[in-house]
Amino acid sequence: MLQATVSGTVIKSSLIEPDGGVLVDARVPESERGSKTLEAELLPKVSLAKIDVEWVHVISEGWASPLKGFMRENEYLQSLHFNSLRMENGTVVNMSLPIVLAIDDETKERIGSSKDVGLVGPEGDLLAILRSIEIYKHNKEERITRTWGTAAPGLPYVDEFIIPAGNWLLGGDLEVLKPIKYNDGLDHYRLSPKQLRHEFDRRRADAVFAFQLRNPVHNGHALLMNDTRRRLLEMGYKNPILLLHPLGGFTKADDVPLGVRMEQHCKVLEDGVLDHETTIVAIFPSPMHYAGPTEVQWHAKARVNAGANFYIVGRDPAGMGHPTEKRDLYDPDHGKKVLSMAPGLEKLNILPFRVAAYDTVAKKMAFFDPSRSKEFLFISGTKMRTYARNGENPPDGFMCPGGWEVLVKYYERSVTEEAMPAAASA
Amino acid sequence: MLQATVSGTVIKSSLIEPDGGVLVDARVPESERGSKTLEAELLPKVSLAKIDVEWVHVISEGWASPLKGFMRENEYLQSLHFNSLRMENGTVVNMSLPIVLAIDDETKERIGSSKDVGLVGPEGDLLAILRSIEIYKHNKEERITRTWGTAAPGLPYVDEFIIPAGNWLLGGDLEVLKPIKYNDGLDHYRLSPKQLRHEFDRRRADAVFAFQLRNPVHNGHALLMNDTRRRLLEMGYKNPILLLHPLGGFTKADDVPLGVRMEQHCKVLEDGVLDHETTIVAIFPSPMHYAGPTEVQWHAKARVNAGANFYIVGRDPAGMGHPTEKRDLYDPDHGKKVLSMAPGLEKLNILPFRVAAYDTVAKKMAFFDPSRSKEFLFISGTKMRTYARNGENPPDGFMCPGGWEVLVKYYERSVTEEAMPAAASA
Repeated sequence: MLQATVSGTVIKSSLIEPDGGVLVDARVPESERGSKTLEAELLPKVSLAKIDVEWVHVISEGWASPLKGFMRENEYLQSLHFNSLRMENGTVVNMSLPIVLAIDDETKERIGSSKDVGLVGPEGDLLAILRSIEIYKHNKEERITRTWGTAAPGLPYVDEFIIPAGNWLLGGDLEVLKPIKYNDGLDHYRLSPKQLRHEFDRRRADAVFAFQLRNPVHNGHALLMNDTRRRLLEMGYKNPILLLHPLGGFTKADDVPLGVRMEQHCKVLEDGVLDHETTIVAIFPSPMHYAGPTEVQWHAKARVNAGANFYIVGRDPAGMGHPTEKRDLYDPDHGKKVLSMAPGLEKLNILPFRVAAYDTVAKKMAFFDPSRSKEFLFISGTKMRTYARNGENPPDGFMCPGGWEVLVKYYERSVTEEAMPAAASA
Repeated sequence: MLQATVSGTVIKSSLIEPDGGVLVDARVPESERGSKTLEAELLPKVSLAKIDVEWVHVISEGWASPLKGFMRENEYLQSLHFNSLRMENGTVVNMSLPIVLAIDDETKERIGSSKDVGLVGPEGDLLAILRSIEIYKHNKEERITRTWGTAAPGLPYVDEFIIPAGNWLLGGDLEVLKPIKYNDGLDHYRLSPKQLRHEFDRRRADAVFAFQLRNPVHNGHALLMNDTRRRLLEMGYKNPILLLHPLGGFTKADDVPLGVRMEQHCKVLEDGVLDHETTIVAIFPSPMHYAGPTEVQWHAKARVNAGANFYIVGRDPAGMGHPTEKRDLYDPDHGKKVLSMAPGLEKLNILPFRVAAYDTVAKKMAFFDPSRSKEFLFISGTKMRTYARNGENPPDGFMCPGGWEVLVKYYERSVTEEAMPAAASA
């Protein structure tokens, strides 16, 4: 794997500056861990849920730079109303999702007038200190409607993490006592922005194009990633590097789990659909909001912090079906439009992609040609999952065989597992 | 009244630049009216409701500069997501409310592929041409939730104008064929931004502080306006001018109507509570959204365009009670916080005011003194209206007697009018 970076040194590839100029690193240097842990033990404690730990991870490595911790009200309001933060020097950085920590009345009471608190993980381990805290109201209705543009019930992140959350938000600067690990066999894929920048430099990348995904890679995705590389070479870049960057935090129940996706992505590289030499596969540790045009800005901004200066955006990024109506929640074109106009992202090169679909004549994934539209087949994520779940094969050339096998086996296992308790109780 | 300004000449006081550098004037010069009207008669027609005419008025005089017409999708999305617009030269102007024109399916059909349309007022008169039009989807749920931060039923502007509106938005550049007039005896108060700038120059103002209101002026308001003048003089300004600027467009049913308010404001000046020499009373033609922190930005931005370089902001600006819950819809502090952080409004001096309340010892409105909080009485707009409606007198010194009489008479009239049909049917 990558060699460790020297702690405290900001490594930046020259391709693009992190937001705010300096990559945030909120992890306490090893030499100070002992004393800070002792200090944290004496502070009022705040218990974190799994989702909060994902955000601690995200903030601590600088994906949300210049954010140094959970948002205080001043940052929260700017994020909610302007999708951006104004820095002291007048520059503006993008910040479209509120990155906040909710606490309940009892926890607020317990904190009292303490200036700092200790953050405790779900297993009871002391993870971090939150400094110079501020407690303010958690108006859930306003947060939800301004972030998602709907108040319909059935939004995965809202139902799981906002509705049941406390009525207060706790902001402050983070000091993380030890690096966040998941011990799921995938930690080596969780490269920090600093590690990614180091790796781009090591490979002497002169352009980095990021591809955000939360689904298995099919040949349509591969087509556009390879086509992007071709376009960048045509533009005169000598060594464009692809950052294939699956999202690793919370996803909704019917999305393919991270472990299966990582296995599938590896097969795609093994099968030669993507090129090992010019591709880096890493996990983006953020949870998924499914907040469409608001969230796509976060997805892009975080990749700027990791050193990507090109971002690929397709149809309906971070979108989903409307939870209560028979339509997409977002206009499929709004994501790329909003991204192209987003404050603070002017420095990022946005690459909207042409739609790829299955060409039934050429028997492969190809860019959609409207002049012979009847010869193209659109295979959605839902349709793909249905094929795999039913053990059916998609059309030849839709996905490399190795990758497809991973999906089929996953659905076989889940069908068996789902059937088990039913059989036992029968 | 004011002398007419020379058409086509941009008159700007030197105090503050209009957004985008040049004040928009979308009114067709008199010499071109004939030919443009003939042209408009041949175009597909779009019927405007009263609320649309209010917006035509607002846009045509440049209150929304640099907006030249109803928003196209590009402007709409920026307004909705960022409360601001990025200009071609990279500068950012504030634009927090979507200023849009909704049309129904039938009208869309009728427009067909025409590039321009004629806009027809509620009385059937041809008011304007909309040029280089763009039609795009009106996602009402997204517009409402992102603008108001709630989807609760009972928002006045939403219920009256958005829910019943068509499923499409029609954007384009306005050319208004004749100045909008209301013939309600108040048109002479409807000074355009150009006229206001001219008047500030004529009076040799070296500071202009705007006070937005939609309620009668009580002595608490007067206290803070007079105190603001005192502060500005202390800051070294020689001739600060107050723009007392009641909102004249749509307001909710239980607000005091414009005509009554204007009469009340005049009494306040007659009674000497405010100084004639240093006050300009004019009507701000915008409709009211009751969208709190989002709307206060619009209120401030429009006054920048009219030449005000100081803006007074109080508790819960543009707020109202939550339509379905027993609480304020917005946090009362969010308005001034959001305003102070709003993109594009950095050039405006924002003056948050101290809370005024009735001092029961001094028997007058005074700045609230927390050290003797029990001696203060808070009289809300609702309470004031209840006093007036019931023919009760508020405490001495709450409002000048002439102003109070206007309100009492208004409520006497409305009680009589309300009672009439009931008596007839009894």
